[in-house]
Amino acid sequence: MRTIHLIGIGAGDPEHITVQAVDRLREVDVFFLLDKGDATKDLVDARRAILERHAAGSAYRVVRADDADRDRTPRDYQGTVAEWHLRRADLYEGLFRDELRDGQVGAVLCWGDPTLYDNTIAVVEEVRRRGRVEFDYTVVPGVSSVSALVAAHRISLNRIGGSVLITTGRRLAADGVPADVDDVVVMLDAHCAFTRLDDPDLDIYWGAYLGTPDQLTVAGPLAEVAAGIPPLRDEARARKGWIMDTYLLRRRRR
Amino acid sequence: MRTIHLIGIGAGDPEHITVQAVDRLREVDVFFLLDKGDATKDLVDARRAILERHAAGSAYRVVRADDADRDRTPRDYQGTVAEWHLRRADLYEGLFRDELRDGQVGAVLCWGDPTLYDNTIAVVEEVRRRGRVEFDYTVVPGVSSVSALVAAHRISLNRIGGSVLITTGRRLAADGVPADVDDVVVMLDAHCAFTRLDDPDLDIYWGAYLGTPDQLTVAGPLAEVAAGIPPLRDEARARKGWIMDTYLLRRRRR
Repeated sequence: MRTIHLIGIGAGDPEHITVQAVDRLREVDVFFLLDKGDATKDLVDARRAILERHAAGSAYRVVRADDADRDRTPRDYQGTVAEWHLRRADLYEGLFRDELRDGQVGAVLCWGDPTLYDNTIAVVEEVRRRGRVEFDYTVVPGVSSVSALVAAHRISLNRIGGSVLITTGRRLAADGVPADVDDVVVMLDAHCAFTRLDDPDLDIYWGAYLGTPDQLTVAGPLAEVAAGIPPLRDEARARKGWIMDTYLLRRRRR
Repeated sequence: MRTIHLIGIGAGDPEHITVQAVDRLREVDVFFLLDKGDATKDLVDARRAILERHAAGSAYRVVRADDADRDRTPRDYQGTVAEWHLRRADLYEGLFRDELRDGQVGAVLCWGDPTLYDNTIAVVEEVRRRGRVEFDYTVVPGVSSVSALVAAHRISLNRIGGSVLITTGRRLAADGVPADVDDVVVMLDAHCAFTRLDDPDLDIYWGAYLGTPDQLTVAGPLAEVAAGIPPLRDEARARKGWIMDTYLLRRRRR
């Protein structure tokens, strides 16, 4: 029997990793690092730095593979993503079969918390469901980018008795901010959907590269600060080759 | 100048604490532990155990105080909670003033993530706003009970392209599951509002004492498993004197 740990490593600060995650790292024989070429070299390096810092002295191997790619502007979003999941499942199935012996432990390091806008759990569950490679797996929770965002701004995610909606840029662009929710966290928004909202009662708390030395934050009334974020975002992305950002929209209570 | 760290310690598993939180613990001169008497003795003991494990060897003091209490079944929920916040601010203001010298570091240990359904940030911000005790503060994010819940069930919080609503038992009882959200996490539900939902398409993933040796989980179609949870919950609560639980309601996609 093989074991796979899906390990949340926090949103960027290498110190956001938990003691549990460090303990698991030290049991691992093979780390699987999927990447998308040079643009994400930084992200691969950051994961290697975590291993060097926290798993030093344990005898692990790193197996790198090219991640499956997908159409980023598909007509059929659900179908395209579902098909991408199957190709990622093929990839992990091959890696688990070929790179792990019976009794060995493998791991995938997931940014933030593996349970939030990360498909690794679903993909690994699909591999298990197919039943062609025998393994069990565990999920090690981590500090999500949502927690890192609001901690950086020193605010709570919710207000007294209030709800919080976590959604995507795609959905925000389609639906706007629902009338019955006053706090909305937006993930995966490459197109800055917040710039197309016209609501004088909204504040935004935005952050990128949270918890790293490159951290950027902007906070203020949406109407005043929204226009400044896309240029800041474009400049940082051009300089680093990638960006991970998220934001909270908060409706002021009267 | 005094410094206060508001430190997320994870949802119950002492290993869910982050490396950053451990580093901060070791800088602290005075830990403030508020409690509500014998019923929550377990929770105080768990925090002391975290200090003994992770801050051993550093010269800290623990200052215990009786937490402000509040009416748990108020007519005016918002007003009652706001007034309770002010009394907690009075309490922390006195503690920061009387128990910390200039240059010293104090800390409050928060269950889970201090940014999620925990009023400590708002209360400490109120103390800072009053300006009668000079201090700065930081927020150290932690693994939330939401992450711990779904990790225990080995599922993702969201589904492909989907939104997630985090809400309270009070709001679920009033509004039900919104038609446009298929994944709803419910916190602070002492009255098991899920038992009053009548929707054959909902699954529930429930958990209590997450990440501890007492962890309880129940998962399945709401219509089949809901009735079993309140007796399990009552029995555990009677035995331990307290319970912290949360759950995800997930609408099956056809």
